[in-house]
Amino acid sequence: MIAVLKPGTSLRQRDNLIAWFKSQGLEVHISEGQMHTVLGIVGDTSGIDIDLLQSLDIVDSAKRVSETYKLANRKFHPSDSVISVGDVRIGGGNFQLIAGPCSVESEEQILQIAQSVRAGGAALLRGGAFKPRTSPYDFQGLKAHGIEFLLEAKKLTGMPIVTEIMSVEHLPLFEHVDVIQVGARNMQNFELLKALGRTDKVILLKRGMCSTLKELLMSAEYIMAGGNENVILCERGIRTYETSTRNTLDLSAVPMLHEMTHLPVVVDPSHATGRSRLVLPMAMAAAAAGADGLMIEVHNDPMHALCDGAQSLTPEQFCELAARVSAVREAVLR
Amino acid sequence: MIAVLKPGTSLRQRDNLIAWFKSQGLEVHISEGQMHTVLGIVGDTSGIDIDLLQSLDIVDSAKRVSETYKLANRKFHPSDSVISVGDVRIGGGNFQLIAGPCSVESEEQILQIAQSVRAGGAALLRGGAFKPRTSPYDFQGLKAHGIEFLLEAKKLTGMPIVTEIMSVEHLPLFEHVDVIQVGARNMQNFELLKALGRTDKVILLKRGMCSTLKELLMSAEYIMAGGNENVILCERGIRTYETSTRNTLDLSAVPMLHEMTHLPVVVDPSHATGRSRLVLPMAMAAAAAGADGLMIEVHNDPMHALCDGAQSLTPEQFCELAARVSAVREAVLR
Amino acid sequence: MIAVLKPGTSLRQRDNLIAWFKSQGLEVHISEGQMHTVLGIVGDTSGIDIDLLQSLDIVDSAKRVSETYKLANRKFHPSDSVISVGDVRIGGGNFQLIAGPCSVESEEQILQIAQSVRAGGAALLRGGAFKPRTSPYDFQGLKAHGIEFLLEAKKLTGMPIVTEIMSVEHLPLFEHVDVIQVGARNMQNFELLKALGRTDKVILLKRGMCSTLKELLMSAEYIMAGGNENVILCERGIRTYETSTRNTLDLSAVPMLHEMTHLPVVVDPSHATGRSRLVLPMAMAAAAAGADGLMIEVHNDPMHALCDGAQSLTPEQFCELAARVSAVREAVLR
Amino acid sequence: MIAVLKPGTSLRQRDNLIAWFKSQGLEVHISEGQMHTVLGIVGDTSGIDIDLLQSLDIVDSAKRVSETYKLANRKFHPSDSVISVGDVRIGGGNFQLIAGPCSVESEEQILQIAQSVRAGGAALLRGGAFKPRTSPYDFQGLKAHGIEFLLEAKKLTGMPIVTEIMSVEHLPLFEHVDVIQVGARNMQNFELLKALGRTDKVILLKRGMCSTLKELLMSAEYIMAGGNENVILCERGIRTYETSTRNTLDLSAVPMLHEMTHLPVVVDPSHATGRSRLVLPMAMAAAAAGADGLMIEVHNDPMHALCDGAQSLTPEQFCELAARVSAVREAVLR
Repeated sequence: MIAVLKPGTSLRQRDNLIAWFKSQGLEVHISEGQMHTVLGIVGDTSGIDIDLLQSLDIVDSAKRVSETYKLANRKFHPSDSVISVGDVRIGGGNFQLIAGPCSVESEEQILQIAQSVRAGGAALLRGGAFKPRTSPYDFQGLKAHGIEFLLEAKKLTGMPIVTEIMSVEHLPLFEHVDVIQVGARNMQNFELLKALGRTDKVILLKRGMCSTLKELLMSAEYIMAGGNENVILCERGIRTYETSTRNTLDLSAVPMLHEMTHLPVVVDPSHATGRSRLVLPMAMAAAAAGADGLMIEVHNDPMHALCDGAQSLTPEQFCELAARVSAVREAVLR
Repeated sequence: MIAVLKPGTSLRQRDNLIAWFKSQGLEVHISEGQMHTVLGIVGDTSGIDIDLLQSLDIVDSAKRVSETYKLANRKFHPSDSVISVGDVRIGGGNFQLIAGPCSVESEEQILQIAQSVRAGGAALLRGGAFKPRTSPYDFQGLKAHGIEFLLEAKKLTGMPIVTEIMSVEHLPLFEHVDVIQVGARNMQNFELLKALGRTDKVILLKRGMCSTLKELLMSAEYIMAGGNENVILCERGIRTYETSTRNTLDLSAVPMLHEMTHLPVVVDPSHATGRSRLVLPMAMAAAAAGADGLMIEVHNDPMHALCDGAQSLTPEQFCELAARVSAVREAVLR
Repeated sequence: MIAVLKPGTSLRQRDNLIAWFKSQGLEVHISEGQMHTVLGIVGDTSGIDIDLLQSLDIVDSAKRVSETYKLANRKFHPSDSVISVGDVRIGGGNFQLIAGPCSVESEEQILQIAQSVRAGGAALLRGGAFKPRTSPYDFQGLKAHGIEFLLEAKKLTGMPIVTEIMSVEHLPLFEHVDVIQVGARNMQNFELLKALGRTDKVILLKRGMCSTLKELLMSAEYIMAGGNENVILCERGIRTYETSTRNTLDLSAVPMLHEMTHLPVVVDPSHATGRSRLVLPMAMAAAAAGADGLMIEVHNDPMHALCDGAQSLTPEQFCELAARVSAVREAVLR
Repeated sequence: MIAVLKPGTSLRQRDNLIAWFKSQGLEVHISEGQMHTVLGIVGDTSGIDIDLLQSLDIVDSAKRVSETYKLANRKFHPSDSVISVGDVRIGGGNFQLIAGPCSVESEEQILQIAQSVRAGGAALLRGGAFKPRTSPYDFQGLKAHGIEFLLEAKKLTGMPIVTEIMSVEHLPLFEHVDVIQVGARNMQNFELLKALGRTDKVILLKRGMCSTLKELLMSAEYIMAGGNENVILCERGIRTYETSTRNTLDLSAVPMLHEMTHLPVVVDPSHATGRSRLVLPMAMAAAAAGADGLMIEVHNDPMHALCDGAQSLTPEQFCELAARVSAVREAVLR
């Protein structure tokens, strides 16, 4: 950790601060510049509150030298993590399509879509049973029934299933779910993350709408620190001032996260753009940027979808997407 | 609801869409412009998914005419809500100071600060027992013990207490808490909001770091729709590109929310700015903008605070703040 | 244009407003909803100030139905514009690489890089002669000499040149420049746009760091309204709260702009990411998203570049990028 | 300047980098941490490109210790600058109201408003002659005639005038203008800033819609480095994701700028909020936050204003604002 002292700091003030660092078991190197003195604080500084340090009258600024995420950090785990979901592997060169409707609406609907996306090349089936909706008056999902229908679809097609959890209390209902999704709004629901860290499920962790990549990795760290290292990260668009798309898909997050962490990174172009016409180009772009997988919303009848229909593809469009994404991946790997 | 059709929409396509609206029990008015046809859809359109509508090939754009929040909407409740916490009233001209440490650290600490802020003019005591921290390795709060110590402080001073909840599971621990705070990261933890809607506690709902005012009101609506109308809103800064302050305090949210809703609005300048030197000017500014109260972090020894010390005032600074804010309020009301 | 009136608007107030619209030569359709009256205003509403309308006491909200950009609008020009720069064509299926150093530093440097990028497959040579720098103390470019050196490079290689203008006054120096670049900071320098609209140069218009796609098209419209329709748009990253990359490259802008306008869209991954390691993946992603070209910073000796070296590729890296982007384009077009 | 080296950097690589710094006339202090080596680079590092440094393979991160703005920096000029405009003084405890219409529309209009705002307590008259408009089809101002009419109003009332410049070419028209305004869109029009630095006019420099406070000060530095230190800064709202107000007024910029610089800071609540109903509360809030002045839009007939009428006050509302702001200031200073 580095602390830059303000011009005018007295020797006594400086020495008091150094003494305080030493009392925390840290070593301090002093570097005198023309205007500023810089302190290099060496040792385990994770217990130092950087905001507090910066607030001291004599401190101009402070900076951490080491990242505070350890388990998710590529520096300590140089090779890619490969996450297994049943027979399906994600990461480390294994690319997978996750597809399905925004919401599970009926057994018939999910069975039909599952077969379609299976045929189109999807490896995992997604579908929402618990739905986070901005308005309390909107459809909130089929809940336990939705999960039952997903499990029927899994039995029929053999596809592992991905579905979102919204509360620790619902965890028992997810016993047979293969991948538990944490939605953007719950990325910093730390109690939920801790509870998931005590399971052995694969967790698909979506980036919050306003979260930095570091915060995303700190949230992954919450799960991993509990003992569960099966975490897949998901870029799903961030909130910006631009209004022509629902969110701004941050594709540079893909290579950037690959540099910062060993965990796989998938991309959800459906929620990010909120417009079905943009899903295909952004899916190809995500594959070209090096994503380890894609989450694609597919619906058999977008006009009557109960939610988020705007961004869903038909099964036919999904098949085309799968083929074209595959061609892009081949070109990228060549 | 209004739907603007694209140029080139055929009569048959237009009539199909109109027929679909009518099948949902809605009436449709047609207005033909030079390039565009505009449909005015009349009736209860809350079941219509506006994203879906906008995604249709023939639809250029769509717009809701009525807000989807009802219980929180000033249009239906023109007069200010006044929320009672014990003998303390907030809103409708009643202005209150809520003060205390970021985290409860010990019984001694909270008793001492409670007496100080009581003397300085605070009506409610705040203190974190469960702490949402970005890193799993940071101090997570004293939890149940923290609440016990707060209740001791309440017994000693008579001040009602405000403390944050992070999970539905912890609700039983909040039985004697007067005001339950929902933090920015949980503003869209809908399961938590629903659970709080079934209690009769006063809820202090903080705006999410990246939430619009409409979303804040929709989250208030979740609580109110469950039967609990005791909601106080809190502006605490939003995330922007600016880095010289921790967040950007959006003070125009105060008069804007007063126009949109009848609920009281308090402001937290401590978390918003993250710098103790900015707390006093922003507290006075919030009062001048018409806030119904302020939440101020106060610590007896900022250097050793376990978290967020950077933004805390000493008890002496809080007393000065209380006096100066009071002078500003008098000037504003004159 | 649509105006939604507030509940409680009197008939007299409503009729006054309608009369005012009629006095401006407009027709008004009235649609009565349950709570709100909606006015559909038909005719040339470009003279109506929507902010003013929204500010009226009786108006709840207002919305334009038609876009205010006409010449740049795909609705009026359905087929792609193809822009010719000498023998080089951009848009409508013609994809081009624009490459070169951030700044022209010497004649030797630009001649050497020009030959390298030519060999690597670039069609146009870029290089900054006038440099917009945040600090007045930073290197501001070689100015007129820089342009001379670029023209030497053009003579040597036959490549048309692209360079940035910063002030109307400098226009005479750009007489032999093929493509004049308007940088992000000048996207709304309207006097400059007007002056460029009176030339017959190809203009490469970069999106402002905080500009919406609509504003970008309105700025293109400034140039086109002056008579110059040779405009190429450039996405170069927008400013968000995320700090791990310099800006956030908004690749969904590519298919979105293709829907909104007939003008070609190129992408600059070098400035957007600010990190050379991210340039290749984001270049491939941009190609997959359908970009009509790429702008790539190339330097012969990044360690000694006078500015922006962080994001520059070596000529060898550029050659690899050109080959890999070409493979991605083939896959996308298949 | 500080450079943090990556783990795994070889001694040879480290020494090469140190040699390179030394070749630039700099001294280097080495501090070895557990994982990282930190270099403290001492001397005049303004010629070092921090982006370049960060891009080197062996560099983890880099950080400037000293600000790059010097003339605007409070560290070097501890006491407040007081700017004189005729007999009017701004800054260092001198608070002023600047008022007038968004656009000058006619001689009659500006004379009338000038007298009204003079009577209400304004010290300076503002009015736009050159108008930056997003659309080329919108009213662009009366230009030279607008300035003439402003000068008539100055003659009539004795008030110094403030009006916006949009291009270096127009500078001769501003010969008798007292305060030249640089609008948000031109905050980084560096050629314009340099030209204004060569004048002796007072410059009112508005913060760009997406500019950091540091960038605002760097733009002030452009003017000051040219020899003109008469700069007044203006906070006018920044662009965020929130849409209920036009921009987000960043009032914490006021005390923050006062810490960073000795220049006066005024606030423009009219443009920031875009809603006349919010102007009064935000004006009072700005005064409470310590602003050195306010810019308020006033119109004699908002319904017929040619632009930005939504945010204008009537002369009566302005008088009320002046009185209430004055009361707030008294309370704050007490």
